[in-house]
Amino acid sequence: MAHDIRIVTETQLREVVTLDLTVIDIIEEAFAALASDTVIMPPILSMDLPMVNGEVDVKTAYIPGFDGFAIKVSPGFFDNPNVGLPSLNGLMILFSAQTGLVRAVFLDNGYLTDIRTAAAGAVAAWHLAPARVETAGVIGTGVQARLQMQAAHLVRPFTRLLVNGRDPAKAQSCAEDLRAALGIEVQVCPEAETLVRESQLVVTTTPARTPLIMADWLHPGLHITAMGADQSGKNEIDPRALEAADLYVCDRVSQCAVAGELEAARAAGLMPQTPPELGQIITGAAKGRRSPQDITICDLTGTGAQDTAIASHVAKTLGAAGTAITV
Amino acid sequence: MAHDIRIVTETQLREVVTLDLTVIDIIEEAFAALASDTVIMPPILSMDLPMVNGEVDVKTAYIPGFDGFAIKVSPGFFDNPNVGLPSLNGLMILFSAQTGLVRAVFLDNGYLTDIRTAAAGAVAAWHLAPARVETAGVIGTGVQARLQMQAAHLVRPFTRLLVNGRDPAKAQSCAEDLRAALGIEVQVCPEAETLVRESQLVVTTTPARTPLIMADWLHPGLHITAMGADQSGKNEIDPRALEAADLYVCDRVSQCAVAGELEAARAAGLMPQTPPELGQIITGAAKGRRSPQDITICDLTGTGAQDTAIASHVAKTLGAAGTAITV
Repeated sequence: MAHDIRIVTETQLREVVTLDLTVIDIIEEAFAALASDTVIMPPILSMDLPMVNGEVDVKTAYIPGFDGFAIKVSPGFFDNPNVGLPSLNGLMILFSAQTGLVRAVFLDNGYLTDIRTAAAGAVAAWHLAPARVETAGVIGTGVQARLQMQAAHLVRPFTRLLVNGRDPAKAQSCAEDLRAALGIEVQVCPEAETLVRESQLVVTTTPARTPLIMADWLHPGLHITAMGADQSGKNEIDPRALEAADLYVCDRVSQCAVAGELEAARAAGLMPQTPPELGQIITGAAKGRRSPQDITICDLTGTGAQDTAIASHVAKTLGAAGTAITV
Repeated sequence: MAHDIRIVTETQLREVVTLDLTVIDIIEEAFAALASDTVIMPPILSMDLPMVNGEVDVKTAYIPGFDGFAIKVSPGFFDNPNVGLPSLNGLMILFSAQTGLVRAVFLDNGYLTDIRTAAAGAVAAWHLAPARVETAGVIGTGVQARLQMQAAHLVRPFTRLLVNGRDPAKAQSCAEDLRAALGIEVQVCPEAETLVRESQLVVTTTPARTPLIMADWLHPGLHITAMGADQSGKNEIDPRALEAADLYVCDRVSQCAVAGELEAARAAGLMPQTPPELGQIITGAAKGRRSPQDITICDLTGTGAQDTAIASHVAKTLGAAGTAITV
């Protein structure tokens, strides 16, 4: 029984899906589903390739009620910039949830991952940041630094933004891009401590392996989203900060414990209890922020549920985009 | 930097690659590489979907010296035949081993898996079966029953073949197909015991969860390849047969222990030692058959190394087949 498989390139996908409130709603829905215990999300397949300075991750999740499920392959080859190629690439495959047949192949080079990752940051900010955010801060100066701030601004329209990064030129470039994108005051902030102390919402977007934010910089009315750590050994937040916060929330506890901020905290003998997950905050199964003065931290490692959600959304909004291959 | 990704359908792949000695050589090479300790092969990502009577497996392996590595997705949705669709589907993606960029997507519906799985059976027969096989037997009557016997016949040109299956009509159909394909005497054999006692080479190709071959049926000069079990709980060979054999060989010990025949044996308190792997027999790192009278068993669960090997081979032999998508 012949059927068509749609092949869609990054360029075509960029015309169909952008980072907006619709995507944020869809990612929120995926997190809510994760709280329901009916989602099936196996551990990430991770292949470390030290001989080529690379790694490959494969994520998936089956969400009941969704027409399809995605399998997402994310290669990261960190010597690629030496030959003029981006480090991150990859694709998503959408399968029918009823028959397992391939429905679409999204040759997105990581674009859909970028979007769904930034959308998760917005979901975290929506549910955990104080209602009023005047100053936001971002640590890191890459694609996610830009997208996280654009996404957060959709749910917390801050009027001032601080950018911190190790490379001053990159920090300047990131600040300029965000000033143009958001139309607000954006400053480079050379000291991470100053950035944290002056912000109500901070997002860390780096591959750091030693903490960038110290526990004694926390202040009442602060929310931090740490989205950089996604592999064992990565660590952006001082483990004592997780203890010191009023609330620490995981996207998925099982992932954060091996690849997120929780790993370093537990290695330090801290945070032995099971933290709540973002989905539980969304559904009300766990309590979120209790007052404007609370200090909250959200740890995002990236879930297959987000991939299934964004791929399903793309399939619905594709129209005639892409190339149909009859199989 | 734009580049092309080749999309190739099952129909196109069937014109390019067939089950022959070249493919068997390539799969042998993959097993030899597995013995070298330089191959990186993470555990299989497996997602069980009981609510739709389905499962999805993802396999991969990085083999040094190969230009690419494959990620293979195998969905099995076992209610599909009710709506006129095959249970097994899926695709393989070939990535550059240097940059991680997607090179090709093989929409093979499991065809390449069928080929590389049968080729592994031939590699096992080549290295482990007695030099002279007059009668071969196959248990099971599906695609693999046919392909395993065609592959084995290329390396052990037996003159008589016995076919055993639960459904007499399917056994008859399988026997007729194999008679036509091989041009030899092929008989349906209603008793598995008779089949085993009369054969020098037996291949089991079923999803059985209770043993099909009993230990007291073993006889000098027998080789058995068990390729059906690939999930926890599947079991084709009496655990005591593994103990009774002169040699039991795994494709990959770590996989056979959780998804192959070794699982049931160890659950029964047998086979506590670490068995040799097929690759070690090929390279000479472990001893294979020592005499024509030895009884040998090979347990094949299917490895990502085979997927990388067959996908790399296909990429080299593609010519102009398929559709080029510029990304």
